Amino acid sequence: MARDERGVTAQSEDFAAWYNEVVFKAGLVDRGPAKGTMVIRPYGYRLWERLQSELDRRIKDTGHENAYFPLLIPESYLSREAEHVEGFSPELAVVTHAGGKELEEPLVVRPTSETIIGEMMAKWIDSHRDLPLLLNQWANVVRWELRPRMFLRTTEFLWQEGHTAHSDEDDARRETMLALDIYHEVARDLAAMPVIPGEKTPGERFAGAVATFTIEGMMRDGRALQAGTSHYMGTNFARAFDIRYTGEAGRDELCHTTSWGMSTRMIGGVVMTHGDDKGLVFPPRLAPHQVVIVPITRGGNVAVEEAAQELARRLREAGVRTHVDARPQLSPGFKYNEWEMRGVPIRLELGPRDLESGTAMMVKRLGDEGKQAVPLDSLPAAMPGILDEFQEFLLARATEFRDSHTRTVDTWAEFADAVSTGWARTLHCGTPACEDDIKSATAATPRCIPLAGDPATGACVRCGAPSAYGKRVLFGRAY
Amino acid sequence: MARDERGVTAQSEDFAAWYNEVVFKAGLVDRGPAKGTMVIRPYGYRLWERLQSELDRRIKDTGHENAYFPLLIPESYLSREAEHVEGFSPELAVVTHAGGKELEEPLVVRPTSETIIGEMMAKWIDSHRDLPLLLNQWANVVRWELRPRMFLRTTEFLWQEGHTAHSDEDDARRETMLALDIYHEVARDLAAMPVIPGEKTPGERFAGAVATFTIEGMMRDGRALQAGTSHYMGTNFARAFDIRYTGEAGRDELCHTTSWGMSTRMIGGVVMTHGDDKGLVFPPRLAPHQVVIVPITRGGNVAVEEAAQELARRLREAGVRTHVDARPQLSPGFKYNEWEMRGVPIRLELGPRDLESGTAMMVKRLGDEGKQAVPLDSLPAAMPGILDEFQEFLLARATEFRDSHTRTVDTWAEFADAVSTGWARTLHCGTPACEDDIKSATAATPRCIPLAGDPATGACVRCGAPSAYGKRVLFGRAY
Repeated sequence: MARDERGVTAQSEDFAAWYNEVVFKAGLVDRGPAKGTMVIRPYGYRLWERLQSELDRRIKDTGHENAYFPLLIPESYLSREAEHVEGFSPELAVVTHAGGKELEEPLVVRPTSETIIGEMMAKWIDSHRDLPLLLNQWANVVRWELRPRMFLRTTEFLWQEGHTAHSDEDDARRETMLALDIYHEVARDLAAMPVIPGEKTPGERFAGAVATFTIEGMMRDGRALQAGTSHYMGTNFARAFDIRYTGEAGRDELCHTTSWGMSTRMIGGVVMTHGDDKGLVFPPRLAPHQVVIVPITRGGNVAVEEAAQELARRLREAGVRTHVDARPQLSPGFKYNEWEMRGVPIRLELGPRDLESGTAMMVKRLGDEGKQAVPLDSLPAAMPGILDEFQEFLLARATEFRDSHTRTVDTWAEFADAVSTGWARTLHCGTPACEDDIKSATAATPRCIPLAGDPATGACVRCGAPSAYGKRVLFGRAY
Repeated sequence: MARDERGVTAQSEDFAAWYNEVVFKAGLVDRGPAKGTMVIRPYGYRLWERLQSELDRRIKDTGHENAYFPLLIPESYLSREAEHVEGFSPELAVVTHAGGKELEEPLVVRPTSETIIGEMMAKWIDSHRDLPLLLNQWANVVRWELRPRMFLRTTEFLWQEGHTAHSDEDDARRETMLALDIYHEVARDLAAMPVIPGEKTPGERFAGAVATFTIEGMMRDGRALQAGTSHYMGTNFARAFDIRYTGEAGRDELCHTTSWGMSTRMIGGVVMTHGDDKGLVFPPRLAPHQVVIVPITRGGNVAVEEAAQELARRLREAGVRTHVDARPQLSPGFKYNEWEMRGVPIRLELGPRDLESGTAMMVKRLGDEGKQAVPLDSLPAAMPGILDEFQEFLLARATEFRDSHTRTVDTWAEFADAVSTGWARTLHCGTPACEDDIKSATAATPRCIPLAGDPATGACVRCGAPSAYGKRVLFGRAY
């Protein structure tokens, strides 16, 4: 195996290079021809489908309905909400010609759909009986990226965007937190990412929001990844798009709206939360293949090949996503390396001698158990438990990594040291100018004000002014 | 119930007006702000999700893998295949500005993805071992429409597009027919549309294809709807995008490619295949709600409301998609009309007297059985069978309608008469000029050369020249 063909740069050597090599070599993505665009290859797309089906089920179970809104939005819509247009203008892709003619009004390719959905909500909502209106959309969006990175920042990405309208602030804020809870659960239980849910500081809010909530995950280089956000818009969009209802008492009222999104960025998060120097490591609940069987059949061995297929059939019957790598032209050793690099949780090796003894050799992608001989008879019944255990192991490992790279700090020296390798919990004055100052000194930004934080007040770690928020803020460098 | 609020124009009076009223009033769609764009509302989107999940399963079961390719394609890609660019140029939407600047090369919003997928196939295919390459994409596409109609012709629509590469013509043609078979099955078994599979005449082929196959359904105004197409591209796209492989003997060869698509247009097809003067009629296997329960609770009746919810719970347990219409402000009569208009296959009415006798009143959306008292105890077990029967009934009804509106004709007078109310099976010379002549005289076009047609030759029904294809051609006016 030539290193330039199959090996990847070590994480410790150059994490960014490791990431960029592994997503291509593992067959997750390819580069699109237009700047910053991405092709999601079948192996990567299956991760997205897994995430999508689990997220979609939770969205529907909580009363939301899917719908679909147009890709192309009149440019003037964006400018109806002042902060929104300011936030998105530099990122827009604009259609100026269509059907062989110049358009009277340019159309933007949606960067997000608050505006067009707001326009429709205004049409559909009449009385308090129409509320809450709980919509979700699965869609592609385009935001022009100057420094694209596969999955993390691409010109086009796939996501779901929830958009809801409510009769009052309480109900809208409950919805905002419900969406955040769903993201927290999906990140933890599916992606084995121990994220921190919290509120963004005013400087980091979504364009047009009253409050933005986030889940923040720690990658293996100590940086943070914002893995999902949920926004309470107050009545800002309702006022801009005239989203009103007649209350029970007959009075005309503005709705309170929310929006929330999770995207293909999550795939980048999974890669950077669990991967190692050998390549990807997928949590079983997301993995395209949970088990790969490599038959060892030097020069062809029909009995072994058939036994491998039979084992796969029984594992699939037990609900395990199983792949048999029967490619005749490649050696077992090559396949072991390849599936390690591609992140398959469990590998089963099956050769003539194993078959004689009624066992297979099992190798987990991580851990120090090495190769274990396991009886073929009981494997299908045992495998779901083995996979669950591996899932738990990944979550515990990521939690331990995060906790050992997060420090509660009260001095600037400690702060600078903490954010050079991970996160700092600290007191901050809350002014944007001080945030900017910290950013230019250390590249760290406030990730969130954790929901679970204890009350704390004191002097700002940077400027010494009285702290804001009544809690510590989590700072880190971020993707 | 005011007619302008709830009633729809009769089909016989003005079919186009009926269609346009019913898709809006039933809550399937709304108009987007940009020309010809469509909002798919939750009730319409659920139909799409049902179709999507059934189609996706069949696509995967036959060995295809889903992937995702960029929305924005460099303009120059389209022009690499001469017929393709000619076919699509007038329909393109073009991004000329992005990130606040004019782009060096404009990007087209994909009207279909042959070109960008061709580019990727060329990168991914190396040897005969990489073939066949069987890809599918679920995506939105944009084709500028001058005369848009909801679902049928919209500037943006949703679809799946399969794209495959093969080592030779036989294998590629097999794939083309496999995709057509999947569409045929989905149309018949899910949408209860008795479509005719056949080949398009050269004048009706997809831009760049060697052969185009179609399934054609008959709408209740006698017009045809092309409900899915499958194309054999020969080596045209392989040559344009350099999609080559090294054969077993070590020779460099061009691939043979296919593409095939089914779209949100199918929803329009379902509406026009089954609807009547009261509104929509949905086949149970596609219907968002298969059963609606209307509790009759004048002034509130807790026992009835609870019994309705309990019945719904038991029906859902039996796998039946059930909705309880518990809106307190509306009368039962209003609800009956509304759910008839919205196409729900089975309505169950449940009042205090029904509850006493342990029955519900069942009303089917179509047929002459009227109201039937059915025992509550046995309803959940019986309902799947009742729904299957209704599904079969719709397919038989649509088949009977189609057959009674299709005639085998040999004279021009018969032809003109047949295509004024339905379809004509006739002999045709196969020249584009004669097709054009028929179209200007009758508005009818060749829908397909049916696969199942018997051998037949003779004089062209229009010009008298010798017939082509060795079979009769199906003509009709089309959407």
